[in-house]
This record gives sequence, C-alpha cells and structure tokens, in this order.
Amino acid sequence: MKIEDFLRENACLIDEYLQHHFSPLSTTSSLVSPILYGVEGGKKIRASLTLATGLSYGVEKKHLLPVAGAIEMIHAFSLVHDDLPCMDNDDFRRGKPSMHRAFGEATAVLVGDALLVEGLRLIAGNEELIKLFGEEKVLDMVNVILKALGIEGMVGGQVLDLEGEGREVREEEVWEIYRKKTGSFLTASILCGAIAGSAPPQEKETLKNFGILLGECFQIKDDILDVTQKKEVLGKTPGKDKIQDKATLVKIKGVEESEKIMKSKWEEAVHLLSSIPRPFPFLLEIARFVIEREY
Amino acid sequence: MKIEDFLRENACLIDEYLQHHFSPLSTTSSLVSPILYGVEGGKKIRASLTLATGLSYGVEKKHLLPVAGAIEMIHAFSLVHDDLPCMDNDDFRRGKPSMHRAFGEATAVLVGDALLVEGLRLIAGNEELIKLFGEEKVLDMVNVILKALGIEGMVGGQVLDLEGEGREVREEEVWEIYRKKTGSFLTASILCGAIAGSAPPQEKETLKNFGILLGECFQIKDDILDVTQKKEVLGKTPGKDKIQDKATLVKIKGVEESEKIMKSKWEEAVHLLSSIPRPFPFLLEIARFVIEREY
Repeated sequence: MKIEDFLRENACLIDEYLQHHFSPLSTTSSLVSPILYGVEGGKKIRASLTLATGLSYGVEKKHLLPVAGAIEMIHAFSLVHDDLPCMDNDDFRRGKPSMHRAFGEATAVLVGDALLVEGLRLIAGNEELIKLFGEEKVLDMVNVILKALGIEGMVGGQVLDLEGEGREVREEEVWEIYRKKTGSFLTASILCGAIAGSAPPQEKETLKNFGILLGECFQIKDDILDVTQKKEVLGKTPGKDKIQDKATLVKIKGVEESEKIMKSKWEEAVHLLSSIPRPFPFLLEIARFVIEREY
Repeated sequence: MKIEDFLRENACLIDEYLQHHFSPLSTTSSLVSPILYGVEGGKKIRASLTLATGLSYGVEKKHLLPVAGAIEMIHAFSLVHDDLPCMDNDDFRRGKPSMHRAFGEATAVLVGDALLVEGLRLIAGNEELIKLFGEEKVLDMVNVILKALGIEGMVGGQVLDLEGEGREVREEEVWEIYRKKTGSFLTASILCGAIAGSAPPQEKETLKNFGILLGECFQIKDDILDVTQKKEVLGKTPGKDKIQDKATLVKIKGVEESEKIMKSKWEEAVHLLSSIPRPFPFLLEIARFVIEREY
C-alpha cells in the first residue's frame, strides 16, 4: 500500500468515526458542528502515527480508532487556539476559513476547549477501550498525552514560540521550541500506539527518541514550506513566519542548509528505529512522507 | 470549626500545595507565574466541596489535596477563558486584574489551556494518588471531571450562556445554563471526594443530585450579587449581567423572587443529603455559606 493511500484511508476512517460518535449529540449541542469542522480535512499524520505504531505491535486498526480520533481532536484543539487573532492570527486553515473566521472568536475559544476535553474523553471515558486494554494502559495513554500538552510540552512550546517573535534567537532555542511545540505531541501519538501494543519500556524509549527527531523534521519541513509553497497547495497562508519574524531554523540557516539538517535528522531517526527488532513499515513511510511532502 | 475558617484553611492548604508543586518548574517555564496567579485567591469553594465530601467518607485531608488542587486549577482555567475580551470581557477578578489584563491575551489563552492540562495531570499523572486509590478510581475521577467540562457540561453551558445574551429566554433555558455552566463542575468536585472515599453508587447518585441543586443555588446567588453587591466586596465588576443582557433567573423573576426560589432549592438539597445515613457537617455548612455569602 502506498503511503498516500494509507494516510487517506486513515483520514477517512477517523472522520467517519468522529462523525458517528458526535453526530447524535448535535441535537443537544451547537458545538458538535464546529467540533467536526475543526477535525475535518488535514493530513491526519498524528492519527496515522498512532495507527502505524499500534499495527506494528499487532493491534487491530479498529481497536485503535478511538485513540487515533482523540489524537486528531486534540491536535485540532491546538490549531484552533493557535489560529486565534491574539495568537498567530491565521484566517485560513486546511483550505477553509479558520475556526474563528467561520464561527466567531468566542466560539473558537470554547470549541478549542471542547476538542481537548472531548478528545480526552474518547480515551479516558471509553468503556470498550478500558475492557480491551485495561485501566492501567488507558491511564498511561491519558498521561502521555497530558504531559505532551502541558507546560513542558506543547503549551510551553507555544509560549516560547510567541516569546521568540521579533528578536534574535539562538539555534538551541529553536530546537527547544520545535521539540516542545511539535515533537512532544508527535511522540505522544506514537507512544499511544506503543502502549496499546504493550511495547517493552526500552522500545518505548527508542520510539520516543524517534518521535522527537521526527518532530524536528516535521517542523523544519513546515517552516521550509512556509517559505517555498503556495497557499492553494498549503491550505493555509504561507510567508507568515517572515511577517511575524518567528524563531525558525530557516531564519537562522536558510532553506538549503535547513533542508540538509532535516535530512540528517531523518537518517538518524530511521537508523534509531532499525534498532528495534520489529518491522515498522508504515512508520518509516510516514517519516519519509514528512520530509518529502509538498503540503 | 466555623465554615469561614474551614474554607480559609483549605484555601491556604491548596495555595501552598500548588506553590510547592509548580515553583520548582518556574526556572524552565514562564507559565508557572501566571498559573499561580490564576489559582491564587478566591473562595476555593469547589476544592472545599471535594475535601468536605472526602472527609465525610473518612479520607485524610492530605490525601485529597492533589485532587482538590486539580479542581481549583481547572476552575481557574474556566475563569481565565471566560474573562477573555471575546467572551465576557472582564478586567477584574478576585480583586486583581484578570489574566489577560495582567499577562496579555495570548498568554491568557495558553495559561487557560495549561491550567486545564496541568490540573488533570495532578490527578491522572500522580503516582502517589494511584498507589493510594488505585487506577480505577483515579480514572473515574478524571472521567467525572472531563464529563462535567465537556459539551454536555461547562463548555456546553458557556455556549448557551453566550447564545442567551440579548434576547428573551425561557426559564427552562436558564436552568439548563445553570446546570451545565455551574452545576456540572460543582457536582464533579463533590463526586471526586466521594470516589476517593469509595461511596456506594446510590450515595453517589444522591450526592450528584445534591450537587446540581447546590449549583443552581450558587448561580442564583452569583446573579443576585451581580445586582446588589459592590466591586470592592465582590472582587469583580458587578452589574455586568444587565449590561450584557445575560440569561439569568434574576432577569426573569427579579431579585426577591429569585431569592425565594434559591432558598427552596437549598432546602431541597439539604433534605436530599439527609437521606444518606452519614453525617456531612462541612458539606451542609458550605451549602449554607453558598446562599448566605456576601461575595
């Protein structure tokens, strides 16, 4: 199966799963429609990381869907809040108006909150999942996600990202932003699949380091695309890093040098994964897609 | 012990606990200071509901502190987001500038997110708590909280609250707003104490119904104080419900009639609690404080 087909199939399954889960609630809550608007579209790379990892450990895809769906909801939470006028002020996301442009700013704040809370509930409050994996693993997944989101993770990275605007930054600062803002949650997506598949602690540690490197590659590629790609292909407004004078590797090293660093990080990641005596076909293909993608 | 002393002592313990937990992280995260700013002050009624309930079931207060601390952080998350300019636009909270006035709007969005995530982590990621109560109960607490926050709870209530502004509302709509916006999380605070204390299912059900009634009393009193109290005593700007034409019982029934309804709800709550063959001295005192408070 080609990686594009794997990603497309997963995106479709996730959208279907979430539609099916939330649509019945739309009669009592006006938040359901913006929630689904927030998760629709996108590449669903994080959900696919969960699925790819779980599959390598022999977990059935259908059993991983609630976890992968939760991962995408929580990712959407971060996008909705990041796009707010007081944050990155993005009017365009996934080829359509961003949440606050479509539903207003107040709703966008609340939908972001709801995506996070209801995303976590898909895992923590899922009796089937608890029956399947047990309380310990479910709680483990919740904790891995919360840690990746907290002040040492994504939210902490967002603060550094905002603090890094409009000033000279050192390369180490950029790596810290990438690791917290992007790497931590990508890693959590992988680890949730590993937890579901009862991966041994040492393999989880390797997968964690793989995830951090992949997160760095992902963010470098994102920052390169921000410079080189068109809005129609990207689905969001390019050229914003320069306008907001963001702390990126591209700003420090230029596109060409950043590309070289990304490829060397990618090779390191692939090498790391090969140290686990188990095939990770989809994970490796996603890693290649991350650095070769055009959007 | 007088209820004011019980509340004051608890508030002090919670502030101390959170200071002690987060201060070491302040060297690596600039979010620690606004996080502590967000939880400082206030009456800490929700934390005291957790403590009061747990104490009635024989749980030691020190074992409940992480849970009560989490409850206050998550309550602070809701206040910080509600106060944002695009939401209720409040400049003043707990006798000091609200979060976005003190730290800026972007930080306020992120601090809100961080309060929620790190609050949940205080319970879900707390190894001592897991050792003490077991994975099942810890997961149960997390779920009770998440359900109370989600689209059928607090966030859903906030949406209804915003949608109810500036138009005629039916009394049933007001009760739905009160139940979701205020009652659901007050109830969760009580239930977390009950879960820690292994309350039987039937007693949990009674406590839940008690919590909903108490939430209604709490919100009616809040709306009465918004009309009758001064800013210096209240610690936040009064008169805002009228300016924003909020859907409140006071708007429909007036202050005097609302007061009567509140007292009758309170009597019902107290009666309900007496059906559990176990003394709830602090819970009853908090309920009295809720309707008699001047701030």
